[in-house]
Amino acid sequence: MRYNPRRSKKESGVKPMIYADNAATTRLSATALEAMLPYLREHYGNASSLHGIGQEAAEALENARESVAAGLGWQAREIYFTSGGSEADNQAILSAAALGERKGKKHILSTAFEHHAVLHTLKKLEKQGFEVELLDVGPVGNITAEQVAAAIRPDTCLVTAMFANNEIGSVLPIAEIGAVCRDKGVLFHTDAVQAVGHLYVNVVEQNIDMLSLSAHKFHGPKGIGVLYARTGIPLVNLIEGGAQERGKRAGTENVPAIVGLAAALKEACEHRQENAEKTAALRDRLIRGLSAIPHCALNGDPVNRLPGNVSFCFEGIEGESLLLLLDGKGICASSGSACTSGSLDPSHVLLAIGRPHEVAHGSLRLSLCEENTEEEVEYILAQLPGIVEYLRSISPMWKDLLAGRRQFIL
Amino acid sequence: MRYNPRRSKKESGVKPMIYADNAATTRLSATALEAMLPYLREHYGNASSLHGIGQEAAEALENARESVAAGLGWQAREIYFTSGGSEADNQAILSAAALGERKGKKHILSTAFEHHAVLHTLKKLEKQGFEVELLDVGPVGNITAEQVAAAIRPDTCLVTAMFANNEIGSVLPIAEIGAVCRDKGVLFHTDAVQAVGHLYVNVVEQNIDMLSLSAHKFHGPKGIGVLYARTGIPLVNLIEGGAQERGKRAGTENVPAIVGLAAALKEACEHRQENAEKTAALRDRLIRGLSAIPHCALNGDPVNRLPGNVSFCFEGIEGESLLLLLDGKGICASSGSACTSGSLDPSHVLLAIGRPHEVAHGSLRLSLCEENTEEEVEYILAQLPGIVEYLRSISPMWKDLLAGRRQFIL
Repeated sequence: MRYNPRRSKKESGVKPMIYADNAATTRLSATALEAMLPYLREHYGNASSLHGIGQEAAEALENARESVAAGLGWQAREIYFTSGGSEADNQAILSAAALGERKGKKHILSTAFEHHAVLHTLKKLEKQGFEVELLDVGPVGNITAEQVAAAIRPDTCLVTAMFANNEIGSVLPIAEIGAVCRDKGVLFHTDAVQAVGHLYVNVVEQNIDMLSLSAHKFHGPKGIGVLYARTGIPLVNLIEGGAQERGKRAGTENVPAIVGLAAALKEACEHRQENAEKTAALRDRLIRGLSAIPHCALNGDPVNRLPGNVSFCFEGIEGESLLLLLDGKGICASSGSACTSGSLDPSHVLLAIGRPHEVAHGSLRLSLCEENTEEEVEYILAQLPGIVEYLRSISPMWKDLLAGRRQFIL
Repeated sequence: MRYNPRRSKKESGVKPMIYADNAATTRLSATALEAMLPYLREHYGNASSLHGIGQEAAEALENARESVAAGLGWQAREIYFTSGGSEADNQAILSAAALGERKGKKHILSTAFEHHAVLHTLKKLEKQGFEVELLDVGPVGNITAEQVAAAIRPDTCLVTAMFANNEIGSVLPIAEIGAVCRDKGVLFHTDAVQAVGHLYVNVVEQNIDMLSLSAHKFHGPKGIGVLYARTGIPLVNLIEGGAQERGKRAGTENVPAIVGLAAALKEACEHRQENAEKTAALRDRLIRGLSAIPHCALNGDPVNRLPGNVSFCFEGIEGESLLLLLDGKGICASSGSACTSGSLDPSHVLLAIGRPHEVAHGSLRLSLCEENTEEEVEYILAQLPGIVEYLRSISPMWKDLLAGRRQFIL
């Protein structure tokens, strides 16, 4: 049946609500919320206060720190709670740069498809005289440890490479990159915002010196994240003031959110394997189904891939229109990163894997989690091809492609 | 009856819980929590996402922005949500400094008793070649607009002066200081963390260019604050990354907390007058009662004073022991700022008003709010003198004072 936005709205009494934007944010888990509520209600003390109600909060804070540490193979004293992943990325990179500068090392290695929290911080450092080199991620959207090894120089002070890409789902060979960095004596930071809770993360086994994570990407609350920094790495403050977080992050500790982060992480780590298997099966069904649409292509590494990530480019259409029509059908998706949704520029990630501008504009990211169902996937597969066909039918670009005035790329 | 920690514990079956540390943090209001819960549960979308569930969050975010603006006499576009007051202070001051530097102006005026979020940021700027001048706050703990006028130089790029002091409760003549700054063409920032929700704050009438506030100081949630910056003031980013907050503060918007902040602020502003009157009456009763203890003194401005602040120094005792014994009686208090409670140094605020080290160590802050009762105040007044007497009876310093080997100061 041909897609018709008006008729189809009439047909369905209750619109389904399929949330397929889990890379943007996730539903707060009931367990995490339950853990938070006592700290939002009765145990509201300031964790820096000496009295009983403050010490209740301080105890919850330290229990959360221990719990997070236990989940990821690190020490409690290596954890710094931040307001989220972006803050952790900024602080990690600026800290490594400050350390490098003191040693006369001002070369930083990264990848072309990092999150803007990393790339924009690197831009800031370039203005301060640092040399930033972004490794090519190729058409598949990944890098190798050999690339890193070849690019490290005597004056390299930091390698920062994301654990998994937020738009196209590629999972990087982090342990191998970490081993190269360890071997060459270069600090290694990874933005693991998309990985923690979804992939196996262990800073010791994976040779990670610094790591950023964000709670709301694994069913924890918004506004809270962690910077992990291996013992002995000196941090610079982004936020000066009180002596919280061992003097490295000022501001009253957000205990309810920290407790929620710890609870969500524990839950995610406990069920990681089964969740990943379930989600990957849904992902693969979606990828197989969508691949049948003509003139489209999967973005990102087909093998080393986040369990929930489905990213496609559809030639001849605009991603934004696609999102709006999907939304009309009760499907919540994204064209790329939520953090750049206000921008008209095509995704730097898609450009980095070689998608031309006009193709990059026709992108769609469906990011699943263990709460999604087979029925939802079938529903998406029932709706999406018709919507793409409809959008192509009204697209001048598509007409040009069909008429041969423009060459098909995909 | 002589104070005896052991016997008195036995006497009382149920220990009262009197929270008198509202300057450290406040109980989250039921109204604010109710407002937050839908955004912690069903409306969990990323406010930067284009789909329905994201747009629900975006709408809540903008409604909160409008509501906060309406409460404090500013425009919605002048609001930047931050992770709290410390972050807002840091960003305001670094922004003004960057602007000053571009104009060749590197002199900053502040006060000796600012919060460390201000003072430590100023220290950072000193290392970058800025000249920081801290105005003397005198024995009363306040400054005048005339002091500011006399100290402003042609190369002054910023005056930053707190609206009200967090330890000793002095309320500064903000409107007058603002008028001097406006008149001399110097940017004026105020750390209003202790003032908003408790005092009348209006950035237009009070000539304020930049202002910091924190939700958890007026019964809002932790982990969320606001930087107000008048239209036209360019901000530098502390956190680089996504385009949230008009590109000036990266990181997924913490919508539940922002909604809670707006609800708590609305409630606080609506009841400000009556709350302030009720709290000030409790404060005055406490101050009168405690003044009867020999060799003690009220800290801070006795006239221009936060409605909830009671700050005393007791000669011959240690503030920390006082807190612990008060806690044993169910009274939650503080010796000074919660943010510096881990430190053994005496409060810089008390030193700034001229209290010698040994006196500054014997400090107590009781910070009340409208939820405190007359019965609680009477209970504190019934307990405190005995505890002070007991601590003095075991204090070597007190013995020296009584024996004349040491001079009384208070």
